[in-house]
Amino acid sequence: MAIEGKAAEARQPRIRLGMVGGGQGAFIGAVHRMAARLDDQFTLVAGALSSTPEKAQASGLELGLDPARTYADYRQMAIREAKLKDGIEAVAIVTPNHVHYEAAREFLKRGIHVICDKPLTSTLGDARKLKALADESEALFILTHNYTGYPMVRQARAMVANGDIGTVRLVQVEYPQDWLTDAVEKSGSKQAEWRTDPARSGAGGSTGDIGTHAYNLGAFVSGLELGELAADLDSFVEGRALDDNAHVMLRFKEKDGVRAKGLLWCSQVAPGHENGLQVRVYGTKGGLEWTQKDPNYLWYTPFGQPKQLLTRMGAGAREEANRVSRIPSGHPEGYLEGFATIYAEAARAIQAKRSGGKVDPAVTYPTIDDGMKGMLFVDACVRSSKRNGAWVSV
Amino acid sequence: MAIEGKAAEARQPRIRLGMVGGGQGAFIGAVHRMAARLDDQFTLVAGALSSTPEKAQASGLELGLDPARTYADYRQMAIREAKLKDGIEAVAIVTPNHVHYEAAREFLKRGIHVICDKPLTSTLGDARKLKALADESEALFILTHNYTGYPMVRQARAMVANGDIGTVRLVQVEYPQDWLTDAVEKSGSKQAEWRTDPARSGAGGSTGDIGTHAYNLGAFVSGLELGELAADLDSFVEGRALDDNAHVMLRFKEKDGVRAKGLLWCSQVAPGHENGLQVRVYGTKGGLEWTQKDPNYLWYTPFGQPKQLLTRMGAGAREEANRVSRIPSGHPEGYLEGFATIYAEAARAIQAKRSGGKVDPAVTYPTIDDGMKGMLFVDACVRSSKRNGAWVSV
Amino acid sequence: MAIEGKAAEARQPRIRLGMVGGGQGAFIGAVHRMAARLDDQFTLVAGALSSTPEKAQASGLELGLDPARTYADYRQMAIREAKLKDGIEAVAIVTPNHVHYEAAREFLKRGIHVICDKPLTSTLGDARKLKALADESEALFILTHNYTGYPMVRQARAMVANGDIGTVRLVQVEYPQDWLTDAVEKSGSKQAEWRTDPARSGAGGSTGDIGTHAYNLGAFVSGLELGELAADLDSFVEGRALDDNAHVMLRFKEKDGVRAKGLLWCSQVAPGHENGLQVRVYGTKGGLEWTQKDPNYLWYTPFGQPKQLLTRMGAGAREEANRVSRIPSGHPEGYLEGFATIYAEAARAIQAKRSGGKVDPAVTYPTIDDGMKGMLFVDACVRSSKRNGAWVSV
Amino acid sequence: MAIEGKAAEARQPRIRLGMVGGGQGAFIGAVHRMAARLDDQFTLVAGALSSTPEKAQASGLELGLDPARTYADYRQMAIREAKLKDGIEAVAIVTPNHVHYEAAREFLKRGIHVICDKPLTSTLGDARKLKALADESEALFILTHNYTGYPMVRQARAMVANGDIGTVRLVQVEYPQDWLTDAVEKSGSKQAEWRTDPARSGAGGSTGDIGTHAYNLGAFVSGLELGELAADLDSFVEGRALDDNAHVMLRFKEKDGVRAKGLLWCSQVAPGHENGLQVRVYGTKGGLEWTQKDPNYLWYTPFGQPKQLLTRMGAGAREEANRVSRIPSGHPEGYLEGFATIYAEAARAIQAKRSGGKVDPAVTYPTIDDGMKGMLFVDACVRSSKRNGAWVSV
Repeated sequence: MAIEGKAAEARQPRIRLGMVGGGQGAFIGAVHRMAARLDDQFTLVAGALSSTPEKAQASGLELGLDPARTYADYRQMAIREAKLKDGIEAVAIVTPNHVHYEAAREFLKRGIHVICDKPLTSTLGDARKLKALADESEALFILTHNYTGYPMVRQARAMVANGDIGTVRLVQVEYPQDWLTDAVEKSGSKQAEWRTDPARSGAGGSTGDIGTHAYNLGAFVSGLELGELAADLDSFVEGRALDDNAHVMLRFKEKDGVRAKGLLWCSQVAPGHENGLQVRVYGTKGGLEWTQKDPNYLWYTPFGQPKQLLTRMGAGAREEANRVSRIPSGHPEGYLEGFATIYAEAARAIQAKRSGGKVDPAVTYPTIDDGMKGMLFVDACVRSSKRNGAWVSV
Repeated sequence: MAIEGKAAEARQPRIRLGMVGGGQGAFIGAVHRMAARLDDQFTLVAGALSSTPEKAQASGLELGLDPARTYADYRQMAIREAKLKDGIEAVAIVTPNHVHYEAAREFLKRGIHVICDKPLTSTLGDARKLKALADESEALFILTHNYTGYPMVRQARAMVANGDIGTVRLVQVEYPQDWLTDAVEKSGSKQAEWRTDPARSGAGGSTGDIGTHAYNLGAFVSGLELGELAADLDSFVEGRALDDNAHVMLRFKEKDGVRAKGLLWCSQVAPGHENGLQVRVYGTKGGLEWTQKDPNYLWYTPFGQPKQLLTRMGAGAREEANRVSRIPSGHPEGYLEGFATIYAEAARAIQAKRSGGKVDPAVTYPTIDDGMKGMLFVDACVRSSKRNGAWVSV
Repeated sequence: MAIEGKAAEARQPRIRLGMVGGGQGAFIGAVHRMAARLDDQFTLVAGALSSTPEKAQASGLELGLDPARTYADYRQMAIREAKLKDGIEAVAIVTPNHVHYEAAREFLKRGIHVICDKPLTSTLGDARKLKALADESEALFILTHNYTGYPMVRQARAMVANGDIGTVRLVQVEYPQDWLTDAVEKSGSKQAEWRTDPARSGAGGSTGDIGTHAYNLGAFVSGLELGELAADLDSFVEGRALDDNAHVMLRFKEKDGVRAKGLLWCSQVAPGHENGLQVRVYGTKGGLEWTQKDPNYLWYTPFGQPKQLLTRMGAGAREEANRVSRIPSGHPEGYLEGFATIYAEAARAIQAKRSGGKVDPAVTYPTIDDGMKGMLFVDACVRSSKRNGAWVSV
Repeated sequence: MAIEGKAAEARQPRIRLGMVGGGQGAFIGAVHRMAARLDDQFTLVAGALSSTPEKAQASGLELGLDPARTYADYRQMAIREAKLKDGIEAVAIVTPNHVHYEAAREFLKRGIHVICDKPLTSTLGDARKLKALADESEALFILTHNYTGYPMVRQARAMVANGDIGTVRLVQVEYPQDWLTDAVEKSGSKQAEWRTDPARSGAGGSTGDIGTHAYNLGAFVSGLELGELAADLDSFVEGRALDDNAHVMLRFKEKDGVRAKGLLWCSQVAPGHENGLQVRVYGTKGGLEWTQKDPNYLWYTPFGQPKQLLTRMGAGAREEANRVSRIPSGHPEGYLEGFATIYAEAARAIQAKRSGGKVDPAVTYPTIDDGMKGMLFVDACVRSSKRNGAWVSV
């Protein structure tokens, strides 16, 4: 097997990580832990894994945490860890959305870096307060819009920035799923329960859960700022309080003399789609297409020339993609690797902070501002839809 | 090679066909001729192939037409052929859009069946007059929305009608192309010239040329009626008078208690797309996906079960698809075969008319009403876009 | 729709065609007829469509043939048509293999061009006699190795010849099917019956029926001559007299200093394959891959550069492919169009003969020599397999 | 995002792992370390990472190893670690092939479990000695035929075992690559150097490096034992001492009354292939197809029914696949996850050993016997090829 890779980086002490949420039966927590572990830059040393004390304790045991650093309450964890000589340097917040703000606040104000699941919060008010806090904090705030960690997404962004497709005219994004085709929130799926509950998720259903990912990805790849949108939201499943399908027309702000347009579709009721996230960007000189289920490929058409299938670490791959790749071309990297890249980038930034050095400008991760934009996107979708799809500024 | 097929049908005399347009340098005419020929139900015996007499004559010679039946003027052809004992029984109209109405009128009023390229006409006014004429004529009017002739499109329609995907919630259609990415209409492409000219094409650019196909396909497969739409049209190429990209949100009329929604995207400025026509329909029990460039496949996901790749004439293919197939599974049929199916269906209807018999209810082709709907769709797109994307009834 | 095409060629009188075989229930005949019709260069005027007189007559009626030119016997047809002033100029032979030789003989010796289905004959002896006859005849002999008519197969051949992949090292071909997975020849499938019957098919089962196609395609694209082979043939279905699966190792003759190697797999017992014909050729500078079920694509990898997806009539398509294309890129052509290309090429050659002119050197069709090679291939497979897979010269 | 997963397992102390090889510039070592880390069952505590003392020391520092446990010599490491109270329990051997035997010996004889890269050794003699040692050792021997760790490979194996495709008739495997198309071993590629060097790699080039993977995968999925083979090996690149392409015909031992056949192709000179490992198995009732570059899919055709695209953790996925999956369907797992599964399975076996319990019968990993078979496969290929492709027993 032809395995060739990147030069090893000099070993720094692993970053001490805590986790809020992610206890027994809560599964995104496991993803964060694998992602944190893959590149060996973090070590999980503390957790407030559940708000139920017994469950918090049991979860900590399962993970091999020191019982003394297994907390039933995140505030308690923040207070105590901040005082420890070897207390956590960063915390991963992986709770339902409505907890994000208050949890993040406790750590940010104590200078502990926050790695937070998306969407940013459950309300726009919370989001604004969190942004204010993050902006004034010394600590870093990293939002896990994990899809931006896929190497070929980095490749696409770099190619657009490099002018490979000329000036962007169109940004088409979609994120269809099918798991909420039926009312599974009424038949015991805990994941479905909180995601369809406005109190825990916020004003957006599919828009908040996956629409934000699609929107973030389109903006990340195109490098464009959204100006306004017109949205038509539906709850196709009877009795569902939040949208399970959204159609959105996008108008981006002018760049290089062109006002790009776009379509965004997100759905949880589209049978046949597991996680059909896709981004397609078209410019005056070419087009790019990427789809999440086959993430090691990027279709590139320089206008008037044959279509090219670029592969991760393959011919035509750029440094921006290769620096976040782990293994040679032809051996697929997947979702966990892309997620891990967010952690690896966070680690690079945290280590630079630690040593008082500068962060390598190549380091790229989603920030509080991306989180704010996602919240404003959801808010705009809901407002537009209530006004029968009128155009609203984001 | 494993070739097994359908039983031959009893030979009837071939239908005598004339053609308006389709002379030298006009290429959709050649497609119609191949389509008419493939299943051996038509014989081309007359033509008004060009409005330039010399070109009309030369074109007729090239095609081997009797010079006495090579006309410089379609009206002349209609008058004379209507009087001939063995005059044409049907005429194919393959001119630019603005000629459709007047040409069709001359034949319809003389009882000659009309097979007309889409869109129906260049103006809504002409369309209404043509519909009135067609409705009162004994002659048939067939519109070549050729994509409805693909067997797996028939399969999809039949499966939806049969309830295989439950009640339809979503209809996503798109038809991206890239050939107008640059201003080729200014550098000598005749195809580009008339298609970007409001006088010859009508009020819709991409919407008229390909948006109508996408809309027709979505309606054909889903069996739904469009209620209203909101559209955002652009002319990305400087100086272009007609839209070259359209984003449209769709709201269908209620059926089975559900008001389905949809998105329609058509574009002529999306590099990497040759003819990316695609239809995806999602219901309460499953989903279907078909794309024109790989037309012998239909993806079918019964919700909660594995995705199936249905193939033309393969396992799971329905009679509605098989009756318009010519060769066994695994040997692809293409665009010409799908187009030929419109002619074959037209032939079945014409032959039934001839013999005074009934048309087999399985016979399916796009009618004047489909043409009307396409015109109203374009009109609604233009109206909505002018009103900044407001919802308008179709 | 963006339809642009090739300039029309000046009309010549259609070639008068007869057919041997292809009556009711015999389906490859219908394919030949559609193929002959598509490009409007032939007109079917006579037939010996079945050896059963009633069936011959009924079949002729169904096709609209003049009853006076509907024969029960191909010899009678050859004799009479040769004497007619407007007798047939060419004949299509579409019977089971064992009839090919004698039928072809009757026409060749009377100067009537023969278009014959493959494999050439059922026995090597017949093949040799037929070759002798064809070589000395004024008439042309065209073998319908139809897959060589696909435009992207022409493209592949032209690219290899042009050195785009350097010197060829590897030729991998396969043609898996699944229709004989069970003993359908015992349950009424006529197609299965004669194809598994040594008396009518010859010594090869899958090797003769589809292996010859795969071999021919590999040779056509690579431009190489096969030197020797080692074969392992099986009849997996109990009681089957002919091979239904073959594994063959290939050694080509030296060219440009390299002795290329190859693998050939043909099978009729591989569930999931309808007609999985595929050719892959690898050289010192690149690779090419084509698969019959998606025939409008050709994968091309210039070594060390990104993979390209070439499309029929798209960017990068060569004149050799475009000259046998009918419609623009993005609208798929299929099996019938590829088959029709063999007829169109035959027509060009026949018309040149007619007028005493030279055949355009671009005209390309499979000849008696290709047929001979196919027979020798089958013979070598059978010989090698009997000798436990020993290498044998072809 | 819809993340649901498996219940967490109770935490056991991590297994203390050492590594032989895998120092600076040696890249398969990094893969093993990521794989060992992903599921958090191992902790790397010692290493003999290079035979060059300075490099060994530097490599240890980079990985954060205790300098006292960074060895320049694997024998020294084995001796000392075996005496430590908390010495390593397992060792990963990731050197070039010729070191495997002697390194493994040192650990096995001290009761330290060995996780060894493939192929087993560089010579058949070494392999036999190693097998004898492993058989008599208390310690486990795990060979990293990592592709057997992909969930959909497990799925395929389980489906075959369950009779879903009936009795197996055909096993088609291939592993084409292109990285040795040119003589890169002469221009500084260290990976290419040792892999084309008989002294370090053994008698097989492509056969040893990737052919063994393909063979192992075919046997793993089909559950069949290879009986004999006929091989045609080539070194297409001038001056290359080992094969860079192999064509192999396979005959399996009779099972359920059928003697299955197969083809194996491995190549390092096939431009366009990064790591094109593929396995296809066909039986009396169905077929299965899996390809490594798209590992989350498995094509399944129950004969006579539509083709199904099974997805990891999707509908139709079996427990055998799900138990080695980490994240829900639609989010791809990749090469590292598949590799990690070998480590996770090894961990389960080692932990059972530790606690004196029984290994869960579901635990599956490649053993010394698989390694032996791979060596015998390479040996048979070389012997057959030398005898001009004669059939030889494996």
